[in-house]
Amino acid sequence: MKRDGMMHLNLFVMGNGHHEAAWRLHESAPDHVTGIDYYKRLAHIAERGKLDSLFLADAYGLPPTIQYKVLMSLEPFTLLSALAMCTERIGLIGTASTTYNEPFHVARKFASLDFISGGRAGWNIVTSTSDVTAANFADERLPAHSERYERAGEFLEVVQRLWDSWEDDALLADQTEGVYADTERIHQLNYKGRFFAVRGPLNLPRPPQGHPLLVQAGASDSGKAFAAGSAEVVYTAQNTMEDGRRFYADLHARAAACGRSSWEMKVLPGFCAVIGDTEAEAVEKENSLHELIQPEFGLSRLSNVFKTDMSVFDLDEPLPFDKLPKQEEINGHRGRHQLFMDMARREGLTVRQLMMRTASSRGHYAMAGTPVQIADEMERWFMNRAADGFNLMPPYLPGSLEEFVDKVVPELQNRGLFRTEYEGFTLRDHYGLKRPPCRNWRHSHEQAVRQQ
Amino acid sequence: MKRDGMMHLNLFVMGNGHHEAAWRLHESAPDHVTGIDYYKRLAHIAERGKLDSLFLADAYGLPPTIQYKVLMSLEPFTLLSALAMCTERIGLIGTASTTYNEPFHVARKFASLDFISGGRAGWNIVTSTSDVTAANFADERLPAHSERYERAGEFLEVVQRLWDSWEDDALLADQTEGVYADTERIHQLNYKGRFFAVRGPLNLPRPPQGHPLLVQAGASDSGKAFAAGSAEVVYTAQNTMEDGRRFYADLHARAAACGRSSWEMKVLPGFCAVIGDTEAEAVEKENSLHELIQPEFGLSRLSNVFKTDMSVFDLDEPLPFDKLPKQEEINGHRGRHQLFMDMARREGLTVRQLMMRTASSRGHYAMAGTPVQIADEMERWFMNRAADGFNLMPPYLPGSLEEFVDKVVPELQNRGLFRTEYEGFTLRDHYGLKRPPCRNWRHSHEQAVRQQ
Repeated sequence: MKRDGMMHLNLFVMGNGHHEAAWRLHESAPDHVTGIDYYKRLAHIAERGKLDSLFLADAYGLPPTIQYKVLMSLEPFTLLSALAMCTERIGLIGTASTTYNEPFHVARKFASLDFISGGRAGWNIVTSTSDVTAANFADERLPAHSERYERAGEFLEVVQRLWDSWEDDALLADQTEGVYADTERIHQLNYKGRFFAVRGPLNLPRPPQGHPLLVQAGASDSGKAFAAGSAEVVYTAQNTMEDGRRFYADLHARAAACGRSSWEMKVLPGFCAVIGDTEAEAVEKENSLHELIQPEFGLSRLSNVFKTDMSVFDLDEPLPFDKLPKQEEINGHRGRHQLFMDMARREGLTVRQLMMRTASSRGHYAMAGTPVQIADEMERWFMNRAADGFNLMPPYLPGSLEEFVDKVVPELQNRGLFRTEYEGFTLRDHYGLKRPPCRNWRHSHEQAVRQQ
Repeated sequence: MKRDGMMHLNLFVMGNGHHEAAWRLHESAPDHVTGIDYYKRLAHIAERGKLDSLFLADAYGLPPTIQYKVLMSLEPFTLLSALAMCTERIGLIGTASTTYNEPFHVARKFASLDFISGGRAGWNIVTSTSDVTAANFADERLPAHSERYERAGEFLEVVQRLWDSWEDDALLADQTEGVYADTERIHQLNYKGRFFAVRGPLNLPRPPQGHPLLVQAGASDSGKAFAAGSAEVVYTAQNTMEDGRRFYADLHARAAACGRSSWEMKVLPGFCAVIGDTEAEAVEKENSLHELIQPEFGLSRLSNVFKTDMSVFDLDEPLPFDKLPKQEEINGHRGRHQLFMDMARREGLTVRQLMMRTASSRGHYAMAGTPVQIADEMERWFMNRAADGFNLMPPYLPGSLEEFVDKVVPELQNRGLFRTEYEGFTLRDHYGLKRPPCRNWRHSHEQAVRQQ
């Protein structure tokens, strides 16, 4: 079971923590999530723990459940750029949707963040999944699932070509000759696809990392196909190590079929740990979080996953599978839908129990235990190739991140499973990923000409 | 001629300086404009000088003249967010186009920057003026001038409603009762216009300043109408104090007709000063900059302003007015077109002379002189109501900003024309502008219902 290399750890920053009731703990400061000092503190703790990266999710709309749940965070491009200035090494991964953005803007903002941070930018590529978002961009409804993924593919293609539109040595800054940039080495894309027509070039040179790191988390079939072809880091929600192994093997097989080597893609399941010095203390902590849950919110969360009003069902009856839509009928977060269905079926859960089971981490793996128990579980997933590392989802923040960094990280370091110091400087360095070479423009220019 | 209050100073950050050949000076570092340290240094100097704000222009395309001229800067939202972390007081104004953006994204990013900076964000509202930009967003050509301004008006309306979608006291963070936000005080806009349909609300509370500061620089008739109705700070290019007075009086009369008080709008003409300890030294500095000019670039710049290939004309003949398009035929930067025409007519310039005259500051006011001469000229414009302050366009950076802060600012302070210390904390404080109250939603809800 020996594996080369070490595991990778990413901090998933989310409001006052991933447990939906975390903000109600006395130690939480729910009004601080609109201030920069809070995020600065989280970033400092994560960097003290030598974590590979921190990550911001995002959506372009306000959930109707804002009464019960804290805002996710500030806007990712602005927040990550600010955090770049008060951190030295940790990677900075932000979410941007391919459904409600323009490739030129996304390419440029990530390139700019990559320059500002000295090569620490990463892009979590999502297609939006909510009608709340759609309503803020002129559309009546979200585009269909397949159309969103087709657009995502084209979007990524354009963004990558824009990042490559300046060859690495195109900026000359030759003061004597008066040549700032070599226009022979700056290229138009002349891209014309189904969704986008973008001439280019980008108005920034090739970013320090060549391409900022590409991250993805789609769990549907089209999501997995997309990840296998392009993603360098994959977030995933897996509830058992066996499911994790299956997903890992499936995704790596798909990536191999795309001609990619296994080291080119790191799979990071979500991992939510309530940490106690004894197991009893950990369980007590978890229970005190669960006691703060508000059932109205939990139900609306389930209603959103199943696209069905769940309040009409008896909370203490088993989940009514036959009254819920099938996965292929869902235009939204299909992976989450399947995960919740599987969990309820496997564990025989009532509606109320499913609500509680998913309150800590929205269906991601969650456990309560001692630092040793937690490190054991992480080692088991890592050694069995269910994970190349973890997307850490601390149930409350900053408390359970601090406990993780102070108690679990040293345990992992002692076992030789995690770095004791940063070795490289860029986000790609941390994940052991190469800087991609620039596109061969002579070849692709012929393509562009053929397309017209 | 006594005026109450003091003048306002804004630093217009641009590549290695506003003189088009500044990057070729030995002291310039043209390869540093993609690195954050350069901007950090500029921001520190500006803040040492107690300047009201710094400002980033922007465009969404690479000019074909990149061979001759340095990039403007990094992307404004990311760069200003980074600068927010290494400054304390100075305002941070970024450009965002209403032609190639979505109001939801713009409202949210400025709100986020306003939170990150503690109320120091400002938005320079532009409509895009270049076909190079248009080609990066699917369009074949730029929309017509009038359509761009109509869209701008609607865009701003939506952004302001989004900033007001949370009332000031809507975030409760009541841990005991479990109420994070009061949904009675968070409003949908249900906006449906010609260009946009946005339901809202924004997924951030009302920003610290209520509304980030609104800045505008349109010089065409529609541009001035827009500024008069909405802008709180107005950038303008005026070549003589008399033109400045006319513009100032015209704009203030238009604003008064919109029901606005004169203190609600600050007019800042562009001001480019080459500073020497003697006049001769200043002139020598200016000449050594002019010697680095490349005529190919100057000509292409003029071609772009006049939307005409200027290389077909004799460089040493007077500007051929009858062969150039009239202002109303220009779909682009109409104000610049008129300014150049007026300048050439007034001063009887040849093509080459116009090229040289506009190399320092693209048609903005430019002078070379001693700190006392420069302060005299600024005082004259200020006292004669040609200006409420200035948009400083240092010809080379950081050198001529440093000279301005160390030599001209103290001269202005000694005359009681400029602050010696920041008094407030927000960008609105610096410009003496009030925090706008939140929209009255009861009233506007009735409107929204009627619209449907």
